[in-house]
Amino acid sequence: MHDANAPLTRPLTRPLADLETPALLLDEPRLQANLQRMAARMAQLGVRLRPHVKTAKCLPVAAATDSANLAAGVPGAGERGPITVSTLREADQFAAAGWRDITYAVGLTANKFAHVHRLLDAGVALTVILDSVDAARALSAAAADWPVPVAVLIEVDTDGQRAGLRPDGAALLEVAAALSGSGVRLDGVLTHCGGAYHAHGEAALRAIAEQERAGAVQAAQRLRAAGFAAPVVSVGSTPTALFAEQLAGVTEVRAGVYVFMDLMMAALGVCRLDEIAASVLTSVIGHQPDKGWTLIDAGWMALSRDRGLAGGFTDQGLGLICDADGRVIGDGGGEWIVSSANQEHGIVTHRSGDPARRLDLPVGTLLRVLPNHACATAAQHPHYELLGADGAVRQRWARFMGW
Amino acid sequence: MHDANAPLTRPLTRPLADLETPALLLDEPRLQANLQRMAARMAQLGVRLRPHVKTAKCLPVAAATDSANLAAGVPGAGERGPITVSTLREADQFAAAGWRDITYAVGLTANKFAHVHRLLDAGVALTVILDSVDAARALSAAAADWPVPVAVLIEVDTDGQRAGLRPDGAALLEVAAALSGSGVRLDGVLTHCGGAYHAHGEAALRAIAEQERAGAVQAAQRLRAAGFAAPVVSVGSTPTALFAEQLAGVTEVRAGVYVFMDLMMAALGVCRLDEIAASVLTSVIGHQPDKGWTLIDAGWMALSRDRGLAGGFTDQGLGLICDADGRVIGDGGGEWIVSSANQEHGIVTHRSGDPARRLDLPVGTLLRVLPNHACATAAQHPHYELLGADGAVRQRWARFMGW
Repeated sequence: MHDANAPLTRPLTRPLADLETPALLLDEPRLQANLQRMAARMAQLGVRLRPHVKTAKCLPVAAATDSANLAAGVPGAGERGPITVSTLREADQFAAAGWRDITYAVGLTANKFAHVHRLLDAGVALTVILDSVDAARALSAAAADWPVPVAVLIEVDTDGQRAGLRPDGAALLEVAAALSGSGVRLDGVLTHCGGAYHAHGEAALRAIAEQERAGAVQAAQRLRAAGFAAPVVSVGSTPTALFAEQLAGVTEVRAGVYVFMDLMMAALGVCRLDEIAASVLTSVIGHQPDKGWTLIDAGWMALSRDRGLAGGFTDQGLGLICDADGRVIGDGGGEWIVSSANQEHGIVTHRSGDPARRLDLPVGTLLRVLPNHACATAAQHPHYELLGADGAVRQRWARFMGW
Repeated sequence: MHDANAPLTRPLTRPLADLETPALLLDEPRLQANLQRMAARMAQLGVRLRPHVKTAKCLPVAAATDSANLAAGVPGAGERGPITVSTLREADQFAAAGWRDITYAVGLTANKFAHVHRLLDAGVALTVILDSVDAARALSAAAADWPVPVAVLIEVDTDGQRAGLRPDGAALLEVAAALSGSGVRLDGVLTHCGGAYHAHGEAALRAIAEQERAGAVQAAQRLRAAGFAAPVVSVGSTPTALFAEQLAGVTEVRAGVYVFMDLMMAALGVCRLDEIAASVLTSVIGHQPDKGWTLIDAGWMALSRDRGLAGGFTDQGLGLICDADGRVIGDGGGEWIVSSANQEHGIVTHRSGDPARRLDLPVGTLLRVLPNHACATAAQHPHYELLGADGAVRQRWARFMGW
């Protein structure tokens, strides 16, 4: 197990040009600004923030998040504050490093019960979610002899995009009733409005944030009216967290990608391009002049295959090209994109596809690629190279992977 | 460094149902059959096989490959035989475990020269590739004082899909001439016909294999006619390796994905669905009956976002659904696919999109997902759970990642 008192980082100052490519860069000033922006917003709204650590999967990023939340006076913030995880492996890793208030926000099934039990035994205040009578009964039966109860939130569907029960449906109360015995404790409801990723413009983002809030609060009120305690109303995504006008009835907000931001968030109007903190450093490895191609050593293994948003948003291919200092190359929000990729090769073309507009730079030139989706791109890398304000590499921060 | 004499595997027999999901499964009988099929073909053609370890990134898979090649009498096979790598990290890992004849098949740039030098110093017989006068000059200058020369292959483009020089162009001879000094040794040419992934039918696969062979041989002959030694003519991909009718003039074949096979190879007619050795074990975590959705705990993090082949091939979404024993569910090559995904959620629908044809299985039911692209799906996982002929988990085999 990781020593909770061990330092989370180790110093490693070196020039950017010393890195082998491809490498995942994390711009610390931009990271800090992103953390502060969300912390200020949550402090203003007066709602607890439970950051989703699935984006970074990195202890030092979570520690920096806690520091920003504490400094801004976010309700519930702590030195090892509340977190959301997408895997029980994240729960293991963060628990071993001292984070104890953890919500696992993917519907629980029986083959994970033993793992949940181990985390509770290790002193983790673990919250799980489910959305079916079957899962509620199975967990109630398995947990009957657990000495510490597991907290349960019922997942609510507020936008028809993924899992969860309708806030106004009969199943909500049936699932609550199916949770029984001393091993489980119904704590309330949780929802995630992934529909925010399809919202064009500020008004649409505000509307979807309100839809998420209203649905979750309605579900909690129906549980309470039926005699169930439902103290927790957990909502969130980065767009809805930043664009919600009010969060009446909500007790906590979850958000993940705001720590790094990405081209999807920029397309939605949630951030500017120069606020994106994560990028992939790459080298020009060749050219095919006839086709207007510049080849780079960042293929889908380094970038992921996430193509970002479809339908009405600008196509950024597999990522947008910046110079080595992180400045977008070209006019109007960038002109060169990674238009296709093999495992370790990226093919850079002009956005127009015009072969005459090749990015004609010498072999060996360093570039950065801004990611469509920071969660997906970061997942392809074992660590972050942390850049200071001077652009030099200050530290290497480890990520973890797997389940 | 890894101890080259340490066992590469450790026993861990357990029932499949004991695994937490998602998990990457590797069916050992199918793996062995795939290895034997390629080995038999190469032995028949009488050409050296240099397996591409980028697919598995796993020492025991490479060791099993060597054993199959030795048993079949493949030219050049050895206990730690020749390999191809896509990253210098693979070279490090395999070299530390005893593999010494390594070709790094991505165009080299200056920020990797020091790493190449370290590998040569450690006794690795390393071959690198390049396709520009600039890269040839830079490497020649850097390597001038290296005590052991680095072998160089000039990358040749035989299908217009990626990097490399035209076999019939002037640049080929210019790059050869730019390699100079005692630190570099021109060994020949290398090509990869990625166009094979767009070939519909056996005749098209045979034609593209011949195109790959002929182009590489032409390039080598032009180098030799101009006075350059070019003993190595390296070609290959899984489809062209298995469908080449003759390989006159070729000295080695590279192929990677054949060890696992995948839905893309099945679509091309290179394998059957029941020959695919890698799959993702997942659990049903819920349903949205109105939409015909079955939710599983394998999202893009477990499956990758690789959507496989476009243009005329059957859309398999993010993967094809099998039962827990690996049998495709439904008629006509499978009926249920992962039609979309979030980070840890997959949405399974009928191929037709008809919501009435929901895969109505209880929460907790185990399923397997066949991958579109085994290289991409396997890269999302830290290890393989190796299944024996009885379907039980026999071992856990580690993968590595990064650069």
